[in-house]
Amino acid sequence: MNYVRTGFSLFFEYDTPRIVHIQSKKVGVINRFIQLCIIAYVIGFAIIYKKGYQDFDNVQSVVTTKVKGIAMVNTTVHPNIQPIWDVADYIVPPQENNAFFVITNLIVTPNQSLGKCPEDSTVIGSNCTADKDCVAGTSLPVGNGILTGKCDTDVGRCEIYAWCPVENGSIKKPDPAVLEDTQHFTVFIKNNIEFPKYNVKRRNLPDNVSNEYLQNCRYDGGANSRCPIFTLQSIVEGANSGSYSSIATEGGVIQIRIKWNCNLDLSVDECLPEYSFRRLDSSTYKISTGYNFRFSRNFKDSNGTEFRTLYKAYGVKFVISVSGQARKFAPVPFFTVVGSGLALLSIATVVCDIVVLYVLKARALYREKKYLQVISDDAYKPMD
Amino acid sequence: MNYVRTGFSLFFEYDTPRIVHIQSKKVGVINRFIQLCIIAYVIGFAIIYKKGYQDFDNVQSVVTTKVKGIAMVNTTVHPNIQPIWDVADYIVPPQENNAFFVITNLIVTPNQSLGKCPEDSTVIGSNCTADKDCVAGTSLPVGNGILTGKCDTDVGRCEIYAWCPVENGSIKKPDPAVLEDTQHFTVFIKNNIEFPKYNVKRRNLPDNVSNEYLQNCRYDGGANSRCPIFTLQSIVEGANSGSYSSIATEGGVIQIRIKWNCNLDLSVDECLPEYSFRRLDSSTYKISTGYNFRFSRNFKDSNGTEFRTLYKAYGVKFVISVSGQARKFAPVPFFTVVGSGLALLSIATVVCDIVVLYVLKARALYREKKYLQVISDDAYKPMD
Amino acid sequence: MNYVRTGFSLFFEYDTPRIVHIQSKKVGVINRFIQLCIIAYVIGFAIIYKKGYQDFDNVQSVVTTKVKGIAMVNTTVHPNIQPIWDVADYIVPPQENNAFFVITNLIVTPNQSLGKCPEDSTVIGSNCTADKDCVAGTSLPVGNGILTGKCDTDVGRCEIYAWCPVENGSIKKPDPAVLEDTQHFTVFIKNNIEFPKYNVKRRNLPDNVSNEYLQNCRYDGGANSRCPIFTLQSIVEGANSGSYSSIATEGGVIQIRIKWNCNLDLSVDECLPEYSFRRLDSSTYKISTGYNFRFSRNFKDSNGTEFRTLYKAYGVKFVISVSGQARKFAPVPFFTVVGSGLALLSIATVVCDIVVLYVLKARALYREKKYLQVISDDAYKPMD
Repeated sequence: MNYVRTGFSLFFEYDTPRIVHIQSKKVGVINRFIQLCIIAYVIGFAIIYKKGYQDFDNVQSVVTTKVKGIAMVNTTVHPNIQPIWDVADYIVPPQENNAFFVITNLIVTPNQSLGKCPEDSTVIGSNCTADKDCVAGTSLPVGNGILTGKCDTDVGRCEIYAWCPVENGSIKKPDPAVLEDTQHFTVFIKNNIEFPKYNVKRRNLPDNVSNEYLQNCRYDGGANSRCPIFTLQSIVEGANSGSYSSIATEGGVIQIRIKWNCNLDLSVDECLPEYSFRRLDSSTYKISTGYNFRFSRNFKDSNGTEFRTLYKAYGVKFVISVSGQARKFAPVPFFTVVGSGLALLSIATVVCDIVVLYVLKARALYREKKYLQVISDDAYKPMD
Repeated sequence: MNYVRTGFSLFFEYDTPRIVHIQSKKVGVINRFIQLCIIAYVIGFAIIYKKGYQDFDNVQSVVTTKVKGIAMVNTTVHPNIQPIWDVADYIVPPQENNAFFVITNLIVTPNQSLGKCPEDSTVIGSNCTADKDCVAGTSLPVGNGILTGKCDTDVGRCEIYAWCPVENGSIKKPDPAVLEDTQHFTVFIKNNIEFPKYNVKRRNLPDNVSNEYLQNCRYDGGANSRCPIFTLQSIVEGANSGSYSSIATEGGVIQIRIKWNCNLDLSVDECLPEYSFRRLDSSTYKISTGYNFRFSRNFKDSNGTEFRTLYKAYGVKFVISVSGQARKFAPVPFFTVVGSGLALLSIATVVCDIVVLYVLKARALYREKKYLQVISDDAYKPMD
Repeated sequence: MNYVRTGFSLFFEYDTPRIVHIQSKKVGVINRFIQLCIIAYVIGFAIIYKKGYQDFDNVQSVVTTKVKGIAMVNTTVHPNIQPIWDVADYIVPPQENNAFFVITNLIVTPNQSLGKCPEDSTVIGSNCTADKDCVAGTSLPVGNGILTGKCDTDVGRCEIYAWCPVENGSIKKPDPAVLEDTQHFTVFIKNNIEFPKYNVKRRNLPDNVSNEYLQNCRYDGGANSRCPIFTLQSIVEGANSGSYSSIATEGGVIQIRIKWNCNLDLSVDECLPEYSFRRLDSSTYKISTGYNFRFSRNFKDSNGTEFRTLYKAYGVKFVISVSGQARKFAPVPFFTVVGSGLALLSIATVVCDIVVLYVLKARALYREKKYLQVISDDAYKPMD
């Protein structure tokens, strides 16, 4: 035999393992069964079901919103509150990034000016009988101002520096909500997305629609699931956690989720958004429910003294979360799964070898056929 | 032969498959070619090109912005509009998270107060001839107020409760834009990022620059691509979709993308941001173009009656999206790709075996050399 | 021998490689050592330490915040500034998405009205001796208005159209900060998260707490690390970069990071948030430190002339970043790592084969045992 190898001859040779081919029903069935399981897992589950042949890219998104509608206040019940609310009134701040807030309920404290007045009666610790009960310069835990150190004995409460008169804490939030009309308002959500890795850009506006369609359509989850205009009521109802009345009364946070899950191995036209809604401040929580904040409109009178109207605004904060992945065939994940699957096939051989060499009656025969013993000079010989 | 195995002897033995070494040009070439392809794929593509030896971390980012500039209005053309706009006027709201909005164009409706007046003539359905045409308590689809139920027969339009006089819908948005001067404004974008997994923190401000450089430099995509100060005009032009005049007139949304793609196996100093700009409300859309919203400044007169100036503000919403990945060598992805690649090499043997055992003339010979037949007692014998 | 195969017999056969079993201390030790390394890597590192048996999902989050507290201004030092600041005053804008801004320091310029006045003396280029020094219609780089083209020779500075009188640039930011009291303010952070892939929803509010606990607890990193109410001071101190006084004076940006790293193979109750704080505008930067912006409150006098109070607001922008991953057992990553590990085991055979066939003295013997030479008709014969 010629063992001389030139670099060239290396290209014209081929090694293949020598195999013991065993014809046996028992072992054959075990062998094929394990192989089938592994092949089914690799092809059926890892590749087809889990789309192991694709890599992915996360969505990049920008959202703008436009709310429309006019609400009227029942001024018989709420004489203090301005009778008509339009978009410049009820959207605070006038624009946000990925969110918008609609005032639905109000407690209004008009004509506050900076000065001294008694603390609100509902503030714990505001009651006093003498000046020593009121530590000057401190403020009470949920108080409205800084204690002057005097006790207003007429009303039995500490005097504070504050925007006076202070908000009356004993006024309950109006129920039904002052601006329950907001349920009929509409919001137009414009969402532009991109999958940078694949250079795919999409938006949530159907391509071939008329201006008229956009003026009249309303999202409804069914036939009009492509319409990007939503009534606030349909969003709240889609969130499935209480009526619009209840969220309007105490305020709340609702997430508008836009999912873009796109298989770019199919047509890019099938890369469409799916909307879902979820209330985030579950109305079933016992504590810290609802959503509200305070803001003011400040004025000056003819003497140049500043005064303000304080609004405690309950309302719905709509947060728009855009998520999603685009998936597309890519060789690395594909071959990694395939290569890994091929390696797993050797498990079948390992298991069957155990059966053949240690379990079957004829194991000595199989062992002799499979193994060629070579004992080297430095072999460990426990029996010696 | 001594089959007794002690646990100890197990460490001093070694199994290696017995191989048929075939010297054949045909099979050898097939074998080596397939092996080469697989090795080239694993090393060249999966490891080197696709950086399969690295794992990654996504960027965490915070952005703050500061806009500078003063715009003057041509008061001959726009006598209603305040002549000078500074940063406290044209940035609404005064600060946002990951975004800023600059007013570029305006329709101003001064001295509105709450009361009754005819609906705007451009609102569809506002025309009437008698009271029955105006359903009390409803509002028209894009109307400005709530119908009182009366028809103002002098002007032939329904009367509404609203902030009166209502915005005149027949006024077109000024062209050229009222605040086209905004194109010369600058914005200083401060971006601090972190890759938490690798504990790497970076910012978009070059480390060794003077205050003077920061006052005078302007980003230009070329020599000054590290300067974090941008003119609004250069951003709009970088977005490549129309002139500043056109976006200033109708408003728009522009994404400022900051990409941090960092190979942390190299020096961290090469981990630098790349800026790109994109208009998101493509000016070529036929419908729902531009970007605008309404806000108001509210006042009170000496009688305490509230009135307001309504601003319909067209402008550019700049949204700053920070994305990116840091990649660094990590053993798990590396060995997963290598292991998977080794497994793929067995494909060469499978293919060549098919050629050798089923295609070549000498297949009976090869089969005999490769296989040692063992027929067990329970063998399936179809020919019996 | 019967080579006829029916499709059926295929299921009752089994191939196993023929092996040379070598008993040798040298090679055995090498073999077992490499195998041990690979098994330790796969099981210990890739699977157990790196959790290679899990796949993951990124967190989806919504945050709302509520700040409480009242600050008093030392009106002896700052007679211009309103004496009491409540939440409707110091939170600007009144609500944001994933962030909130608290005013801590102020420069107030009251009673500005639109008109003509000299540019501020600190603006570079504002000095003039004659009208030709002031180019009409331009504005100076960090100026407050548009040059009229006249030089106000009384003060030696260019005249501008602007909100007059302009902010006095020579006034330094007050130190200590006007609203240093803000350090005792509290913020209630409500964070609702979701891992959509696993349909797991969590919030940062402990489930079984009373209203009382929520009114009194304060986050402290230790025993009260679950309390979602933070004092601004503890956040700033947690960020470990300077005292509250210094950040209050010049403003700053602080990131509140909420990490949700959840192993969903354990109980979902252990899926808890971890808070950490970081100052993003490092106070050690030489340039562009702090954070401030300008906003105004606009008024009208009895003649209908608009005037305003300009606020240069220094303050702390708190940005809330929620990040995190949930991990859960999944078969694809598990079997990919295992399969890849099995394939890596063949490295041991490759290395030992090199030793056995090329290094050991008895290499010729081993080669003969391992290889069965078959020379085909088309063999490449370099020696012929």
